[in-house]
Amino acid sequence: MTKKISDNQKMASDIEIARAGALRPIAKIAAKLNIPEDALKAYGTDKAKIALPWIEAQRDKPSGRLVLVTAMSPTPMGEGKTTTAVGLGDALGALGQRAAICLREPSLGPCFGMKGGAAGGGYSQVVPMEDINLHFTGDFHAIGAANNLLSAMIDNHVHWDNDLGIDPRRVTWRRAVDMNDRALREVVCGLGGVTGGIPRQDGFDITVASEIMAVLCLSENREDLTRRLGDIVVAENFSREEVTARDLKADGAMSVLLKDALEPNLVQTLEGTPAFVHGGPFANIAHGCNSLIATRTALKTADIVVTEAGFGADLGAEKFFNIKCRKGDLHPDAAVIVATIRALKVHGGADKAALAREDCESLKKGLVNLSRHVENVRHFGVPQVVAINRFPGDTDGEIDLVRQHCAELGVGVSVCTHFTEGSKGALDLARQVMAVIAEKDNTFRFLYPDEMSLWDKVRTVAQSVYGAQGIIADKKIRGKFQHLQDTGHGNLPVCIAKTPYSFSTDPDLKGAPSNHVMPMRDVRLSAGAGFVVVICGDIMTMPGLPRRPAAEKIHFDDAGRIEGLF
Amino acid sequence: MTKKISDNQKMASDIEIARAGALRPIAKIAAKLNIPEDALKAYGTDKAKIALPWIEAQRDKPSGRLVLVTAMSPTPMGEGKTTTAVGLGDALGALGQRAAICLREPSLGPCFGMKGGAAGGGYSQVVPMEDINLHFTGDFHAIGAANNLLSAMIDNHVHWDNDLGIDPRRVTWRRAVDMNDRALREVVCGLGGVTGGIPRQDGFDITVASEIMAVLCLSENREDLTRRLGDIVVAENFSREEVTARDLKADGAMSVLLKDALEPNLVQTLEGTPAFVHGGPFANIAHGCNSLIATRTALKTADIVVTEAGFGADLGAEKFFNIKCRKGDLHPDAAVIVATIRALKVHGGADKAALAREDCESLKKGLVNLSRHVENVRHFGVPQVVAINRFPGDTDGEIDLVRQHCAELGVGVSVCTHFTEGSKGALDLARQVMAVIAEKDNTFRFLYPDEMSLWDKVRTVAQSVYGAQGIIADKKIRGKFQHLQDTGHGNLPVCIAKTPYSFSTDPDLKGAPSNHVMPMRDVRLSAGAGFVVVICGDIMTMPGLPRRPAAEKIHFDDAGRIEGLF
Repeated sequence: MTKKISDNQKMASDIEIARAGALRPIAKIAAKLNIPEDALKAYGTDKAKIALPWIEAQRDKPSGRLVLVTAMSPTPMGEGKTTTAVGLGDALGALGQRAAICLREPSLGPCFGMKGGAAGGGYSQVVPMEDINLHFTGDFHAIGAANNLLSAMIDNHVHWDNDLGIDPRRVTWRRAVDMNDRALREVVCGLGGVTGGIPRQDGFDITVASEIMAVLCLSENREDLTRRLGDIVVAENFSREEVTARDLKADGAMSVLLKDALEPNLVQTLEGTPAFVHGGPFANIAHGCNSLIATRTALKTADIVVTEAGFGADLGAEKFFNIKCRKGDLHPDAAVIVATIRALKVHGGADKAALAREDCESLKKGLVNLSRHVENVRHFGVPQVVAINRFPGDTDGEIDLVRQHCAELGVGVSVCTHFTEGSKGALDLARQVMAVIAEKDNTFRFLYPDEMSLWDKVRTVAQSVYGAQGIIADKKIRGKFQHLQDTGHGNLPVCIAKTPYSFSTDPDLKGAPSNHVMPMRDVRLSAGAGFVVVICGDIMTMPGLPRRPAAEKIHFDDAGRIEGLF
Repeated sequence: MTKKISDNQKMASDIEIARAGALRPIAKIAAKLNIPEDALKAYGTDKAKIALPWIEAQRDKPSGRLVLVTAMSPTPMGEGKTTTAVGLGDALGALGQRAAICLREPSLGPCFGMKGGAAGGGYSQVVPMEDINLHFTGDFHAIGAANNLLSAMIDNHVHWDNDLGIDPRRVTWRRAVDMNDRALREVVCGLGGVTGGIPRQDGFDITVASEIMAVLCLSENREDLTRRLGDIVVAENFSREEVTARDLKADGAMSVLLKDALEPNLVQTLEGTPAFVHGGPFANIAHGCNSLIATRTALKTADIVVTEAGFGADLGAEKFFNIKCRKGDLHPDAAVIVATIRALKVHGGADKAALAREDCESLKKGLVNLSRHVENVRHFGVPQVVAINRFPGDTDGEIDLVRQHCAELGVGVSVCTHFTEGSKGALDLARQVMAVIAEKDNTFRFLYPDEMSLWDKVRTVAQSVYGAQGIIADKKIRGKFQHLQDTGHGNLPVCIAKTPYSFSTDPDLKGAPSNHVMPMRDVRLSAGAGFVVVICGDIMTMPGLPRRPAAEKIHFDDAGRIEGLF
């Protein structure tokens, strides 16, 4: 996220803005949602977890409205989904609504690479941003511990009697660490002779890519969590039958390790809007949304809840609707599609080095990408508004072109400046969102029924959402589809892992490609999370550090303040 | 720790007792030490960290008295050092002293193996015991993250330009995880081709064995922590020169990751005595004491502070005195040496299957072990009391033998029953401790000066404490000693890693063996922690799980309570 507003004017950095803001006691933030102090487990004065029994007791209360913030196909620069969710939440609050925001927790590892923090930015941030970006309330470490306990129990089982007959060549469960560490992508463990166990090939994923993250984020309560943990398939035995975490008797201890992690975290925006920041599964091999428990808690306590999903609407919103809303019986009332002039130009073929220049030609060409996303959200029957996250260099001529295009599409559009102005910059968006909720019919529907075969589900998504002609896979992969169908997993939704940068599987194919064919490279069961991951491309589940990691610059300054983290 | 009081009577389990106790709000516990509420960072209502600036501001206050709880050579059954420290602290409080307790944090990994929790037991526990035994305030996860960031930065550096010329064969820094996981003891990382980096042999230690744990526990403040982290030697370059964490520019980010972990944790005993539970380095390859910051904070806020060190007095107290007290300028006022009838019999050669039977002959023979520990503590000039941690099966005849022996040794002795009775069972011990502090001259001294050579330091400890005739090492190891001496590390204290079960290096040699020769197997620099580790035997830095791990039985019961953890 750029901090430079114009050539002459430099805006304060995210961390400077975050430090300057006065944090309200978290109990006061909770009080805005009528969450009593005794339902809070404080972490300092500015963070709290909400106790599960209190959440359970709200079960029969009516739910508020649910607004999803999604985006056009993103660029690596980021389009500002999180800041828009924060700005919109703040603006709804400014309009007198009892609003809450639901976001994903940032992963620790990428902070030391090049990504920087993930708690919004500018005047649309959640705070305390340093804590949120570091260990926060320890949820991810707990998930890592549960993941690695399961790994240790697998290898321990094989080392002793191997009563379950686990085939060490067919252990699919990998270890996890919340770190960008390419050297752990592929390892051989169990070396050193008898005391080191049975050598086998293994690898580490970054914690957010662990199935346990997805499990935690889709669980309804502690019982459901324990059941899902038990359902996780970790290996095959020598008869090629599935071995689960339950078979290893690991589910109980893993659930105990996740005791606190399952409770949603409450923090605040710079403007004091309550923000639930909880869970953060990958948006490729998982569904990419914050936890179901957090979203439900927000819906039971607020009149209107703003949440976000990973990547663009093709990946993030599709999974939010088809996976999270299906599992959690959620009925989204509106969707905001974030677009930037910059990304529209990229999708129109603009030179990346010249994005700061007015370029109406590229912009016009790139609008097809936005159109496709608008159409896609319509497939789900959810009313929508386009939000242009305005950057200082965007010209009025460029903005007008988008307005005009949206008018032709019949979708509302709002130009937002929350990054530099906070809620004030998203008031119009908030009003438009309120208006579409009030005016439009919400006919939310899934794209496919549970009963459809896995293969047909993937084809449906590929054709309806990606504009593909069809899908293909070699015999081995088709066999895997059939095997999953035969072994009783056919009723699960599909979670498609592909590049977020294009509707196709080629990240360089910009705009809105059509009639392409999508090759399926692999298919994997996430039986605990309750979906089947379909891999269409290279998916990285363990990032590496760049040549000059951000970590080299991170330190305490003489006043004891953190420098270099963001 | 046995829960059985007699054949007819079953005492409540640790967890039942812990649950039955009413926890006081942590702010009230802090108030006992005049720690104001705004110096606390709450973790729920029953745990808090103390803010470092407040601690810094107490710097010039006078310090209270410091009492070390140590023990005779332990047996694998455990002699009850932690429960004695808790019982003594409670009893001092009951006598009207403003008392505080300083303990190590338990490690998560062993909870899933067979050890169970480590927060005391019976009516001498620190609470909330479930939280303390699980993730607590996240300190160990933060230490693991800092450890693994350093590992990632090492491999990343080698993968890119390797400007420092790190020899991948000579990377000594290992990765860490807070889990018992034998399959990670020796691994090959960096596999999978170019994108996986440079393959090399590596391994994981359990987090408590990480040098970062020792660094955190010996740091005076944040600046000292950062400096020590920078001093850590991680590898040699191709010219056989040391490469440090500072060379990799990892020290700042590691320090930021340890931001909260450096702040001491405050909890309470079942009887409401303030307990600082912070840090937990291994007692073999590290010094085995809670953090210096916690001990100092306790000394500035309490009139009398009870702390413990790992294993028996030969290993634990020796390191507490020679390493922690030296680094931290601490002046211990008294030492309590915990003995059990059971362990005395083991050291007298009793059959382990018959320990429940009265056996005065074995007991008499085993008393030499206790005598040696008493003498050893005298070497340091610290007044002492022997505490017999009485078990229900111990006979009066056996107890009297120990009393008589202690009278001959000229050391006070107290029979304690705090496990079953709480503070009441340690009142006599508390009175005796107060008496020796008041009456005896405290002439605390180190066993060797900084200037003594490393080799002579080890020989001094071996002869004075272990009763050895001398020490030996092959040429390679003697060369390593010389190399450390030549490279400017000769002024560091030595940290001896050996079996805790015998004064010799043979765990089966019970009693008080003399004139044995101690072979040095390896010597390693912990430049950040500030000591040289001398290894005399097989030291396990990554435990494994047993055939039937405790994890298999850990679960939530129907009422949502944790079962099987302890």
